[in-house]
Amino acid sequence: MYLEKIQTPNDIKHYTPHERKILAQEMRDAMLIRTSIHGGHLGPDFGIVEATIALHTVFDSPKDKIVFDISHQCYPHKMLTGRKDAFLYKEHYNDVSGYTNPDESEHDFFNVGHTSTSLSLASGLAKARDLKCDSENIIAVIGDGSMSGGEALEGLDTIGELGTNLIIIFNDNNQSIAELHGGMYRSFSELRKTNGKSPNNLFKAMGLDYRFVADGNNTEKLIQIFQEVKNIDHPIVIHICTQKGKGYKLAEENKEAWHYRDAFDIETGELKEQFLNPYAELTATYLLDRMKTDKKLVAIAAATPSALGFNKERREQAGAQYIDVGIAEEQAVAMASGCSKNGVHPVFATAATFWQRTYDQISQDVCINNNPVTFLVCWAGFYGMNDVTHLGIFDIPMLSSIPNLVYIAPTSLKEYKAVLDWSINQKNHPVAIRVPLPQFTDSNSPIRHSYDDINSYEVTQSGNAVAILGVGNMYHIAVKVASLLKKENIQATLINPLFISSIDKELLTQLQTNHHLVCTIEDGILAGGFGEKIAGFYAPTTMRVLNFGLEKNFYDRYDYEELAKTNHLTPQQIAQDTLQLLHTLQNKNS
Amino acid sequence: MYLEKIQTPNDIKHYTPHERKILAQEMRDAMLIRTSIHGGHLGPDFGIVEATIALHTVFDSPKDKIVFDISHQCYPHKMLTGRKDAFLYKEHYNDVSGYTNPDESEHDFFNVGHTSTSLSLASGLAKARDLKCDSENIIAVIGDGSMSGGEALEGLDTIGELGTNLIIIFNDNNQSIAELHGGMYRSFSELRKTNGKSPNNLFKAMGLDYRFVADGNNTEKLIQIFQEVKNIDHPIVIHICTQKGKGYKLAEENKEAWHYRDAFDIETGELKEQFLNPYAELTATYLLDRMKTDKKLVAIAAATPSALGFNKERREQAGAQYIDVGIAEEQAVAMASGCSKNGVHPVFATAATFWQRTYDQISQDVCINNNPVTFLVCWAGFYGMNDVTHLGIFDIPMLSSIPNLVYIAPTSLKEYKAVLDWSINQKNHPVAIRVPLPQFTDSNSPIRHSYDDINSYEVTQSGNAVAILGVGNMYHIAVKVASLLKKENIQATLINPLFISSIDKELLTQLQTNHHLVCTIEDGILAGGFGEKIAGFYAPTTMRVLNFGLEKNFYDRYDYEELAKTNHLTPQQIAQDTLQLLHTLQNKNS
Repeated sequence: MYLEKIQTPNDIKHYTPHERKILAQEMRDAMLIRTSIHGGHLGPDFGIVEATIALHTVFDSPKDKIVFDISHQCYPHKMLTGRKDAFLYKEHYNDVSGYTNPDESEHDFFNVGHTSTSLSLASGLAKARDLKCDSENIIAVIGDGSMSGGEALEGLDTIGELGTNLIIIFNDNNQSIAELHGGMYRSFSELRKTNGKSPNNLFKAMGLDYRFVADGNNTEKLIQIFQEVKNIDHPIVIHICTQKGKGYKLAEENKEAWHYRDAFDIETGELKEQFLNPYAELTATYLLDRMKTDKKLVAIAAATPSALGFNKERREQAGAQYIDVGIAEEQAVAMASGCSKNGVHPVFATAATFWQRTYDQISQDVCINNNPVTFLVCWAGFYGMNDVTHLGIFDIPMLSSIPNLVYIAPTSLKEYKAVLDWSINQKNHPVAIRVPLPQFTDSNSPIRHSYDDINSYEVTQSGNAVAILGVGNMYHIAVKVASLLKKENIQATLINPLFISSIDKELLTQLQTNHHLVCTIEDGILAGGFGEKIAGFYAPTTMRVLNFGLEKNFYDRYDYEELAKTNHLTPQQIAQDTLQLLHTLQNKNS
Repeated sequence: MYLEKIQTPNDIKHYTPHERKILAQEMRDAMLIRTSIHGGHLGPDFGIVEATIALHTVFDSPKDKIVFDISHQCYPHKMLTGRKDAFLYKEHYNDVSGYTNPDESEHDFFNVGHTSTSLSLASGLAKARDLKCDSENIIAVIGDGSMSGGEALEGLDTIGELGTNLIIIFNDNNQSIAELHGGMYRSFSELRKTNGKSPNNLFKAMGLDYRFVADGNNTEKLIQIFQEVKNIDHPIVIHICTQKGKGYKLAEENKEAWHYRDAFDIETGELKEQFLNPYAELTATYLLDRMKTDKKLVAIAAATPSALGFNKERREQAGAQYIDVGIAEEQAVAMASGCSKNGVHPVFATAATFWQRTYDQISQDVCINNNPVTFLVCWAGFYGMNDVTHLGIFDIPMLSSIPNLVYIAPTSLKEYKAVLDWSINQKNHPVAIRVPLPQFTDSNSPIRHSYDDINSYEVTQSGNAVAILGVGNMYHIAVKVASLLKKENIQATLINPLFISSIDKELLTQLQTNHHLVCTIEDGILAGGFGEKIAGFYAPTTMRVLNFGLEKNFYDRYDYEELAKTNHLTPQQIAQDTLQLLHTLQNKNS
C-alpha cells in the first residue's frame, strides 16, 4: 500500500501517473471505511482527491501555503501531510479534527469551519509574504457553494487588486450542501458549458486572471496546469470541475445526502442510526401546514435547509414560499427584514454558530427597524455541536445585547410550537427563538395563550429561600436540581425565564421577600450571558446570586459530561454549591 | 421657487425639462447652504440630484419602493418627499435625520446608515410583493463604493435568481469615501470606458440584466431609461455614471474632502472649525514612524482611512504597508489574521459601530486561531456618534464575550500609545483597543512597562469602603466621582480596569477586605457589559455592586448630557447614588 508509507508530501512528489492512480484509490478506500464508521464530509472529500494529490505533487507545502475553505474537503490533504493513520486505523480515527488545524500539522494554517473565509485569509498570507519580500506560493481552495458568501466575494475583490502571486483553486462540483442558489451559479454553469469561454465570468469581473479545467478529477491534467501557474506573478483563478462524491456511486447519485454522512453501511448506504431532530420536524410540519392558508409566510434558508427540517420534498411543497439564498447569512437576515417590511412574515433558521455571521444585519437591518421576523437559533447550547468552530455557546451574549430583539428560550416541543406560532402571528417585535436541543422535548412549563408580555418569566414551582432559573435546555437541569434540593427539605422556586433578552423586574423584586439566593443555569458562556444580567439586577441588594454556566473559552471536541463537571454544571454539583451557600447564609442569620 | 411648493413627488411629475433643470439648481442651492451651516454628506447628494428627480418623475413612490443604500445620498429624495423645509429653513434643519427614516415619511422604508444593505433589503421587499401577487416596482439605489461590501454582493447573487421586477440603480461616481480599491473597480472603469460594453461585467456575471447610462446627471436621459424599465419583469441593473459633488466646484475637485463636510465657508470651502482627532493623529504618526524601520507592520483600512489618521499624504508615505480593502470589514479582519499568521503585524481601525459587521471573522478567523493582531475600536462610547445607526455603545458586550480577544480601554493619549506599542510588539494575543474619545486625553493612570498581564487592573488611588471602576472614557468620570466623595470624607479606591475582557479576580477579592461597595461606570449598554461581569463575580458574596451605564436601547440623535442624566451617568448622580447606598449599609452595620 502506498498510503501507509506517506509521511510528508515529499513522499509522493516523484510518483508515476500509475502510482498516483493507485494512491487515489487507496485514499478513497480509506475515507470510505472511516466515514462509514465515524461519519464525516464524504462528498466534498471524495471529489477533491485528485486535486489534492496534484497540489502536493507540484507545490512545496508548508513553504507554499494551501488554505482550504471551510476545510470540509481536507481529508485527502491530511492523509498526505503526516496524518494518514487517522484515516487508516480505527484506533486513530479521533486523532484528527474534521477541519484543518495548525495544532495537528505545519501544513495547516488556520483552524476553520465556517465557509467563505479562505480567500481573505490567503490574501493576508500573500500580503505578508510581499512585505517580507518572500516568494512562496499562496493557494486558496474554495468550493462553488462557498462562493456565495460575502466574505469570499470581498476577498476576491481585494485579491483582484493585489497584483502578486495568489492561486485560487475554484473547486466547482455544481453543488452546495443542498442544490445551488443564486445568479452567479447560472454563470458558472455557462462557464462549464463553454469550456470556460462564456463572457459572464465573476472572476474576470473581479479583476482576476482565469483558467478553466474541465476535468478536475484528472490528476495528470491538474499537475500540468499547476506546474504552469506555480510561481505566477499575479493572482489567478483555476476553475476545476470536479464530481462531488466521486468514486462512491451512492454519493455521486445523491449529493445532498452524502455531503455529510453519519455512520452508514457501505453496501447499501443506509445510515446505521436514523436521526430526526424533533424540533426541525416540528418546524417543517408547522410551516408547511400553515403555508397552505397563509401566503404571507416565507421560510428562508442559507444553504442549510435542514435547520428548517426542509428536505427536498418539503422544499418543493413550500414552493415560492421557500427561498434558499445560498451560504449568505447576511443576505438571509436583511432579506427577512425586507419581506417583513412589505407584509410577509419571514422565518429564517440556522445554527447558533452561523448567526455570528450576521450580527450587523440583525442589529441594523432588522432591529433598528423593529421589523417583525422569526429567527430560529438551532443547535444552541453546549450539549450540541462540540467542534471549536461550531460552538453554540455564544448566542446569549450576542443576541441578548441587541435592543428590540426578543430572544426566547422555550423548554419543550409544546412550548416551542406555541412560541413559534405566537412569533409568526405577532407584529411588534423581531423575535429569535432558541430552539431546544433534540434531547430536551418535554417539560412541565405551561403553554401560554400569548407571549406578548416579553418581560414575564414563568414560575413553574413556588418555594422559598432559593430560586432557580434554568434557561431553555438548562431548565431540565434546574428541575433536577430542585428535586435534589427537595431531598434536603428545601422547596426551591423553579423558574423558566423564557425571555432571555429581558429582565422580569417585578418577579425578581418579589423574590426578595422570601428568598436569600437565586441560581441561574445556562448552557452558554457566563461572560455577557443571562446569569450576569440577573446578578446585575441584584447587585446593589442583599440577594445572593450563583451563576452557573461556562467559562468563556473556545472548547474543542470536548466530552460533554466532562465539560459539564469542569464547569460545575451537573445537577449534583449545582445542588451542592447551592446547599453550601444556603448553609453559610443560614449560619450567619442564626 | 419651485422647491418651496413641493409637498409630494406628484408635484413634479408634470414638470417640463426646463422646470426640472431649475429645480435641480434650487435643490443644490438649498443643500449647499444647509451643509455649509449644518454639515452633511455633500458629495454623494450633489451627484444624485438628477437621478432622484428622474426617479420621482417616473416611479410612483411610495407604492413603488425606493431603497437608498446607506442613504448618504437621500437629501434630494427627502426634499421631494415632503421634507423640503428641513433643507430650506435653518430652524427646520434638525427636523430630519441624515439618513432615510420611516418615522419621517412613508417614502422611506428603512432606517439605514451602514453600507451595502440596500440590495438585500430590496430583495425582501420584492419577494414579499411576489408572494402577495402585488406589482409595484422595487428600486435599490447603490453607489460604487458600497458594492465592495459582502452583503451587497450576496444580495446581487440572490437578486440574480429572483426572476421578477427589481431595478438596481448603480450610482457610479468613481469614488468611495476615499479612493476606490478592489479588482471590481478596474472592471467598472472598463465599463465606463467602453460605454458599458466591456465583457467583464460583475452584474451580468451575477445573472443580471444590465444597461449603461454614460451621463447619470442628465435628467431627461434618465427619465427616458427609467420609463423603459418601469414595470420590467425581471431584475436589471442601470449603471449610471454621475459626478460626485457635481455643481460645487470645490467638491468636484476634491471628492474625499467633500464626501462629508462639517460646516464651511461657501466661498472658500474652508471649515468653520478645524478638527483633528488627537488619537487618530497619534495612531498615524506612531505607525508611520515605526514603519520606517519595521517592515513587518501593515495598516489596514476598510474605506475609512481617517480611523487610522491616514490622509492621502500619509497613505502614500505608508506605501505597501497600507492597504484599503474597500467597504469590506470582513475582508479586513480575516486578511489581518492571514497577515499575522505569516509574520506581519496588522493594525485595522474602524468605528465601533462597524466592528459589528465582522463579528464572525473576529471570532473564527482571528480569535480561534489566536493570531496576534491590533484592532482599533474608534468612536466607542456614548459621547461619540449619536445617530441610531452609528452608536458606539454595543462594543463591550460584543467584543468582551469573544474568547482569546484582549480588549483594552486606555484612558489617555499616553496610555493609548503605550498600549498600542505593546500590542504591536507582543505575539500572544489578538488585541482590540478601545480608542478613547478625542475629548479625553489626559489621566493620572500610570504607564506600564508591559501590558502582558492581561488580568490586572490599575489601582490609581487607594481607599476604603467604596471602589470605583471607570472604564476607558468613563475613568474620567470616576475621577470626578471620587473627588465628590472626598468632599463627603470618603476616600474611594479608584480603579482603571484597562482590561475589559477579563476579571482581575485577585484585586476584586482583595477589595472585599475593606470595601462594602464597588461601582462600575461604562459608556455603553449595561446588558452584557463590563459592570455585569463585576456583578457576576461578586454575586455570591456580601459585596454590593452598583453598575452605571446605559439601558439597552437604540438611542437616536440624543442630547449627550440629557442621556447621561436619564441614565444616572453624571458624576453628581453617581456620587449621590453611591453615597445613598453607603449610608444604608452603614446604618445597617451600626
